[in-house]
Amino acid sequence: MVVLLGGSGFVGRAFQAELYRRQIPFASLTRSSVDYTSLSVLTEYLRNSRPRFLINAAGFTGRPNVDACEVAKTECLAGNAMLPGVIRQACESLEIPWGHVSSGCIYTGTRADGTGFQESDPANFSFRQNNCSFYSGCKALGEELLADARNCYVWRLRIPFDERDSSRNYISKLLRYATLLEATNSLSQLTEFVSACLDCWILQVPFGIYNLTNPGSVTTSEVVSLIRQSGLSARKFRFFRDDAEFMQIAARTPRSNCVLDCSKALAAGISMSPVHEALKTAMSNWIWE
Amino acid sequence: MVVLLGGSGFVGRAFQAELYRRQIPFASLTRSSVDYTSLSVLTEYLRNSRPRFLINAAGFTGRPNVDACEVAKTECLAGNAMLPGVIRQACESLEIPWGHVSSGCIYTGTRADGTGFQESDPANFSFRQNNCSFYSGCKALGEELLADARNCYVWRLRIPFDERDSSRNYISKLLRYATLLEATNSLSQLTEFVSACLDCWILQVPFGIYNLTNPGSVTTSEVVSLIRQSGLSARKFRFFRDDAEFMQIAARTPRSNCVLDCSKALAAGISMSPVHEALKTAMSNWIWE
Repeated sequence: MVVLLGGSGFVGRAFQAELYRRQIPFASLTRSSVDYTSLSVLTEYLRNSRPRFLINAAGFTGRPNVDACEVAKTECLAGNAMLPGVIRQACESLEIPWGHVSSGCIYTGTRADGTGFQESDPANFSFRQNNCSFYSGCKALGEELLADARNCYVWRLRIPFDERDSSRNYISKLLRYATLLEATNSLSQLTEFVSACLDCWILQVPFGIYNLTNPGSVTTSEVVSLIRQSGLSARKFRFFRDDAEFMQIAARTPRSNCVLDCSKALAAGISMSPVHEALKTAMSNWIWE
Repeated sequence: MVVLLGGSGFVGRAFQAELYRRQIPFASLTRSSVDYTSLSVLTEYLRNSRPRFLINAAGFTGRPNVDACEVAKTECLAGNAMLPGVIRQACESLEIPWGHVSSGCIYTGTRADGTGFQESDPANFSFRQNNCSFYSGCKALGEELLADARNCYVWRLRIPFDERDSSRNYISKLLRYATLLEATNSLSQLTEFVSACLDCWILQVPFGIYNLTNPGSVTTSEVVSLIRQSGLSARKFRFFRDDAEFMQIAARTPRSNCVLDCSKALAAGISMSPVHEALKTAMSNWIWE
């Protein structure tokens, strides 16, 4: 049996679907039934249920966007930094292997040579750099709490999308935002992401951090071109003049835009399709909300 | 009725003694009876007990010293950053005034002109500066969670001492450490500190941050001179050559050494005796463990 935390969220629902598809029995815990933010409650539950694996897809992301975390700081810290630390303690004490959904948003830009960040690169969009959103700071702090964790995967998701129109889907966001920000990013096709996470466990790849993004990177205007080519929208997309205009008009806190290198996962036998291909597939199978 | 959290700690016991002395009825909560780290449990307790004031003297300091926080990161984050955020939520929802024991350890050195840091100076020994211990980072993050908190005092303690020999008393530490680090610091006489905290509430000074240190600053070798003059110890005190030798031999993580300006508290009518005087009084009334 697998235990899933945060099963009702955008990422958690994708885990549920993938676990069903693979016919892996799982228990999706809700906090109202088992308050898994409490070390003693979580430990007691795990001691009794003895799962083979635990997935932490719980976190606090802010609605409608990451700006909300600038006011809900306590919830953001609790969900993104404290919780992984608590789960680590529970899982290590019972020797239960587990995986944590982290985020690529702890980076900004690319490496100095223009390539993507590897797992060994330290976060450069974090409290430590004092350049980040409170959300990114908390996600980076969460990874800090997992440094050298035993039997633990840290799976880095980055700007999820799939073929289902939804407020959390990157393609849907671009379709609806009044004005867009030009930037270069790595992305994660959500179904491929959760499948890659489960494969880490099934294939028994070594524990540690994995950037689980689709190979390559893409600019906002490239995605817009794909949207227009796919026929999803014929509207004229407007762009902010630059980051400064975006920050002035639309954002309260800086955004992470970054390129990740996923070659560690690929070398371990985890497959992800190239990002442009994954985007085209999602758009050609698009299901409006 | 006043509710005291963390009453069994070094600072909490001093609060208990001062509340007794002033004949102020109080309830000292233990986590085993009321898990005040849980927002719902704390809110429920406060809704029923309706205290006039709450004191948070709970925190995680690490034993035997702050280096222990480098490994117990989850507990450190929970006790020093999360907990004040949770208490804020509970107290704001019920409109209960409260005070949080923070620390001057979120600073290093002095202002550029050599004077002490004022409450309006941003922390300069914190995750944001990436120069700090995990403990100081968490204390600074805790203050960040209390920014603009309503009906809330943030009381900054700094290297507590009093006349009772104990492992947490600065004078006792100097008496027992094999080798000392020369540094300039502001200090807090513990009895005066808790008295000043209660006076903030009793005298209804405006809510906000207060540096509650004894006026002035003192070097390690000045304290050593006072120890020798007082007759407490005739031993030869050895000093590290410099910070580098201290870090190499004795410490895992950097220490905060800093000077605070307590004039805001003094101007509000809170009294603290000059630091050299407070040290002499403690030494002349010294009680061995």
